[in-house]
Amino acid sequence: MVNDTLTAADIDSANAVAVGRMLSATPTVIDVRCAGECIPGFAPNLILTSGAPLPWHAYQGGQRAALIGGALYEGLAASEPEAVARFEAGEILIGACHDHGCVGSVAGIYTASMPVFVVRNTDRGNLGYCNLYEGKATKRLNYGVYDDDVRTRLDVLRDVVAPVLGRAIRSAGGIALKPLMQRALNMGDELHSRNTAASYLFMDKIFPHLLDVEVSKADLKQTLALLTEDNYFFLRLTMAASKVTADAAAGVKGSTLVTVMALNCKAMAIRLSGLGSEWISGPTPTVEAKLFDGFTEDDIAWMGGESSITETIGLGGFAQAAAFPLQEYQGGSPEFMIARNLEMYEITLAENDVFKIPYLKFRGTPTGIDLRKVIATGIAPVINAGIGGKNGGQIGAGMIRVPVECFEQAADAFAARYGIDPRP
Amino acid sequence: MVNDTLTAADIDSANAVAVGRMLSATPTVIDVRCAGECIPGFAPNLILTSGAPLPWHAYQGGQRAALIGGALYEGLAASEPEAVARFEAGEILIGACHDHGCVGSVAGIYTASMPVFVVRNTDRGNLGYCNLYEGKATKRLNYGVYDDDVRTRLDVLRDVVAPVLGRAIRSAGGIALKPLMQRALNMGDELHSRNTAASYLFMDKIFPHLLDVEVSKADLKQTLALLTEDNYFFLRLTMAASKVTADAAAGVKGSTLVTVMALNCKAMAIRLSGLGSEWISGPTPTVEAKLFDGFTEDDIAWMGGESSITETIGLGGFAQAAAFPLQEYQGGSPEFMIARNLEMYEITLAENDVFKIPYLKFRGTPTGIDLRKVIATGIAPVINAGIGGKNGGQIGAGMIRVPVECFEQAADAFAARYGIDPRP
Repeated sequence: MVNDTLTAADIDSANAVAVGRMLSATPTVIDVRCAGECIPGFAPNLILTSGAPLPWHAYQGGQRAALIGGALYEGLAASEPEAVARFEAGEILIGACHDHGCVGSVAGIYTASMPVFVVRNTDRGNLGYCNLYEGKATKRLNYGVYDDDVRTRLDVLRDVVAPVLGRAIRSAGGIALKPLMQRALNMGDELHSRNTAASYLFMDKIFPHLLDVEVSKADLKQTLALLTEDNYFFLRLTMAASKVTADAAAGVKGSTLVTVMALNCKAMAIRLSGLGSEWISGPTPTVEAKLFDGFTEDDIAWMGGESSITETIGLGGFAQAAAFPLQEYQGGSPEFMIARNLEMYEITLAENDVFKIPYLKFRGTPTGIDLRKVIATGIAPVINAGIGGKNGGQIGAGMIRVPVECFEQAADAFAARYGIDPRP
Repeated sequence: MVNDTLTAADIDSANAVAVGRMLSATPTVIDVRCAGECIPGFAPNLILTSGAPLPWHAYQGGQRAALIGGALYEGLAASEPEAVARFEAGEILIGACHDHGCVGSVAGIYTASMPVFVVRNTDRGNLGYCNLYEGKATKRLNYGVYDDDVRTRLDVLRDVVAPVLGRAIRSAGGIALKPLMQRALNMGDELHSRNTAASYLFMDKIFPHLLDVEVSKADLKQTLALLTEDNYFFLRLTMAASKVTADAAAGVKGSTLVTVMALNCKAMAIRLSGLGSEWISGPTPTVEAKLFDGFTEDDIAWMGGESSITETIGLGGFAQAAAFPLQEYQGGSPEFMIARNLEMYEITLAENDVFKIPYLKFRGTPTGIDLRKVIATGIAPVINAGIGGKNGGQIGAGMIRVPVECFEQAADAFAARYGIDPRP
């Protein structure tokens, strides 16, 4: 394939290569370490946040609050005004999670001392990272809240949970995540808004190793309690697993496969395999959500979010017919969930050979979003998401859609790069 | 209500009382002990087996082999001929599980030294028991096989698993089972042929207590391995929980509620609440099963089975639309499973207020089979079951139906007792 002479058939071939790498990825969690120690190029004064990068002054609402909270937590500033001044002066650096092998839940704050899961795609050797679940309190740093309770929980993650899990995971020689994710889809999880079964399956895998390492009983109990306190512990492992899976498919010349769908406080952005690390930003998503009691749609605030990496590889909204219990949490009906799930086959390149949906007679999940199919059908990718509020914290959950405008702009960028309009 | 003047309205009232007790039952596992120590009236030379009791000479095939295996395991005979002679002489006694607060998986062998879960219905105080899962080997005593491997596994259950679990359960002050069962229905279990999630949920509940009791690491690991090696560990807890739930509804004068559906090697039998402990036997079940590779329907052999106590209280086949992954194991399709599940609403008295089916928009499972409705509709109760082979061992799994003849005969017995034909 020579540059400037890309054909539609070349795009097909490139997409087959890209989605093949996505399907054959084998994510394994190999360690839990501090972000600053293990993520290439991490600096003590760097804070990662979700979505396409923005200049400091453009961050607003919960995402701005989360960045400030991260600076305070990391000791990069002693007060909010000082943090703001240092961000303005460029003394505290802001990076995009996806540009550093990471993936952010909601605002997605990573600072140097925070622990992260280290996940390796043993198929191709690429690494990815995700920080740890803060627990079920609605006020969390990743939802733009920083106070004494948030700090205390972050300290417990860093000082108790991460060392315990890290020892057990190293003692196990790593834990293959794909088999756990596969089984979890038989147990009511879609691995975005529901990771209940996967968390138990992970607990089962590490328990023998927890017994083998030197850990106090109190620390062990505190760690185990976090694993199963609600539906979200394993999500961070799903996210890191999804990141290495999507990254495996990135950078294939001429491919229109979507490798990233990420939100910041201003815009949804995507990346295409064939456009490498180029960010294509559009508007914010459309929403169909169930809000917690006492909240209305006026209370919704965008503050970032990259857990849509799960949908990018055929999970979450793309596997929601595996997770009917989610009706209760995010609204909708089984019929609605089935219909949305089936729609996603219209915009994807493959049916997953490992991730299967029991209700659909074990049909593989729709995997690998193709820009061309999204534009041809007008069907926007669905994402199961937690919803943040203007005053911080989580205020609901539901389905959002990536605006089709992102894909139109990506098609323009693709045309500019390759000299061929990928639109059908 | 005066005897001999029972009206149709009296039957309705009696059924409301009976099914109310079934719905309000709150099973809690409180201990693991030897059958001979804790089951009232157990004798050192007593062996319990599944189904309505038969004279020794009537037991055949796998159930006969299982009784002999039980006698050898318990040391009641040193050889098969000696065991046969002692059964014939009445020196080894045979009892029906259900007559002793127990419930048998397949052949359902209980001997005095075997460990059992002790489950208490804290709502009414009644107790029930179930022995422990032998593991996933296809050759097991409850499937009519007794050899060195089977004996070794039974020894491990008695000497390792039961003491570990017993200590943890006592340390926990008992573990409420109904909340775990409720959650498991959101995680792909129907709690008869699939108890995967429930086993993990149980493991999670006992972990902290396992850490608190004096148990060697090796014993702990061996116990945990059994809990999650396949889909069946928790079934014995579901069965004991179901037994105390069904027993709570038993003995209500004038009630046509079914409280037992049990199989021996010759016949399916049922009990009605209003007929107390009277057994009503009919033919063997009809079968729709998926057999393991290499087996045909000619290889099927009946050797008993009482895990249908789960269907009796609204689980298993009555909750199969919660467990689409079972397609793979027992055949059928989601549509088939949904249709069979919906049918069961036609023959039951209530919709469960705790056990809900996500796919059916959290509709309560059909609970409490009414003899009158079975006869009126001709719809026989469905049971998700493991299938035994003529040469012993499990050879498949699938759906069976309790013959309607059982219900016709029960109606006759009810008419004889109360002077009113309950048929509509």
